[in-house]
Amino acid sequence: MAEFDLIARIAARSGGRADVPLGIGDDAALLVPPPGQQLVACCDTLNAGVHFPLDAAAADIGWKALAVNLSDLAAMGATPAWALLSLALPEADAGFIEGFLDGFDALATPAGIALVGGDTTHGPLSVTITALGLVPTGMALRRAGARVGDVVCVSGTLGDAAAALHLLQRQVEADTPAVQALRERLCRPQPRLALGLALRGKANAAIDVSDGLLADLGHIARASHVGIELEASALPCSMHVAALYGASHVLHFQATGGDDYELAFTLPPERFESLQSELAGQGVGITRIGHVVAGSGVVLRDAQGTRLHFGHQGWEHFSGASA
Amino acid sequence: MAEFDLIARIAARSGGRADVPLGIGDDAALLVPPPGQQLVACCDTLNAGVHFPLDAAAADIGWKALAVNLSDLAAMGATPAWALLSLALPEADAGFIEGFLDGFDALATPAGIALVGGDTTHGPLSVTITALGLVPTGMALRRAGARVGDVVCVSGTLGDAAAALHLLQRQVEADTPAVQALRERLCRPQPRLALGLALRGKANAAIDVSDGLLADLGHIARASHVGIELEASALPCSMHVAALYGASHVLHFQATGGDDYELAFTLPPERFESLQSELAGQGVGITRIGHVVAGSGVVLRDAQGTRLHFGHQGWEHFSGASA
Repeated sequence: MAEFDLIARIAARSGGRADVPLGIGDDAALLVPPPGQQLVACCDTLNAGVHFPLDAAAADIGWKALAVNLSDLAAMGATPAWALLSLALPEADAGFIEGFLDGFDALATPAGIALVGGDTTHGPLSVTITALGLVPTGMALRRAGARVGDVVCVSGTLGDAAAALHLLQRQVEADTPAVQALRERLCRPQPRLALGLALRGKANAAIDVSDGLLADLGHIARASHVGIELEASALPCSMHVAALYGASHVLHFQATGGDDYELAFTLPPERFESLQSELAGQGVGITRIGHVVAGSGVVLRDAQGTRLHFGHQGWEHFSGASA
Repeated sequence: MAEFDLIARIAARSGGRADVPLGIGDDAALLVPPPGQQLVACCDTLNAGVHFPLDAAAADIGWKALAVNLSDLAAMGATPAWALLSLALPEADAGFIEGFLDGFDALATPAGIALVGGDTTHGPLSVTITALGLVPTGMALRRAGARVGDVVCVSGTLGDAAAALHLLQRQVEADTPAVQALRERLCRPQPRLALGLALRGKANAAIDVSDGLLADLGHIARASHVGIELEASALPCSMHVAALYGASHVLHFQATGGDDYELAFTLPPERFESLQSELAGQGVGITRIGHVVAGSGVVLRDAQGTRLHFGHQGWEHFSGASA
């Protein structure tokens, strides 16, 4: 298959938005940003053997490469608009491409994001997606903005993806509902787009949990010049993780595991209950897990108030880090 | 070096535009598109060993990864605004990063483009840049739009980068001014941004010469539903290529060599002379190389009117192609 055939297959999946006067097929795409909105731009790469197993399903790769970017847009409170895809492939394999695009579309279509451009190259399997979203001017959620006295919250459950990775690395082949559910969390993360929109004007700071809760809340603490105190017993845990692992493993997954793509955020305590009710109506659970204090850093305490320590605070792509 | 150090080094080079309320350091960047402008978006990847030699200088990689994207913006008549950089590295090497950023900045600063976000990952050396530019609504140059009777033009000289690659592949070590000049064309291509702006409202169609003249004009012919006739003797050639190669090699480089990043465009013949004068004042040479005819495809003829054929019409990343 030639590069132009490859591009034709990708172009066949593009389109679907009226604000794209020119999509795939020219030197660049033309896009129409609406008045009164700021553009929200992010870019994430997944490399084979690093961010997904070499034998990962093409559709899972397509889904996840988009999901990690949409999760960043969600954490900004943005509405997805346009995406550019750069795909490096060792060989032009039509089956892989179609599978990849099926997975990409399965998430892109409901999220309302249009593929408008990109590049296909020869090289080790790697996917880079640039996602562009929109947010009304001044309404974006940032890492800076957490205030002393805020409650710290997280959506959904934590540690599922880390548990799934743990099972995968130990080559656990069991196909129980719990294992399947965890694998789904790792391979098909659901970006919290609706939650991001609901947090506009309510949260003081937000981030997506991609590197691990402690590491990601560390970014909020640093950017906001505050400290964060977390209660270990409050961290939400799925019944699937609880069914498969003991308390010590579970807490490690929850505190340091990456790839959950939940949102962590802070807001004034008086806003919590009405937001929780509003979101429950949309099927989105949020949990209060701690509070913002004067100082710096993120501290996790057990029920007795004893500070808990972990060997590392999250995922770093290069070793030698101390987050 | 840890990932956060790497990001800090990159973040230290970002900024420089007032329309970036939030750059590197959050989940995404916030950008302010000005009213009355369309957004122009493109994305190109360079992989080590495919798009540049494994031992290429870091600064040359940084320059070229940006240049190929700015060339796409130039071909649309866009003004560069913002860039996102995804950098996959086998190891976090501070010297490489600083060199890479030096090369990137050497082009980004005069072009007025701000680095606003991106990603650093562990993987085989690969650079993906997404460039975002701006063009007044309705003024973008497209591939579609060439009209029968238009003259076909190209900027600068053709075949220099292909000749440089030919020398490189044959491990020609000579360090004569001609060899140096060609190497500079290959490693430090100059995107034709000023020319792109000058072509707004004048050219009917435009493209950048990245894959080879015949291949790239083929895109214009297809998108515009026209044919293109070129005169081999009219193709512009640098004195450096002419000094090193015979006529047959030169023509092959000019017609099928990629990586020149000149602009090829069509416009009504009556506009040519005044445009040529205007551009000459800016140090940009343009040459009339053919004309647009009814029909399809691109035909290259010698001085006797005989049609010339080449084995392939340009660079494709996957073999088996017939452009």
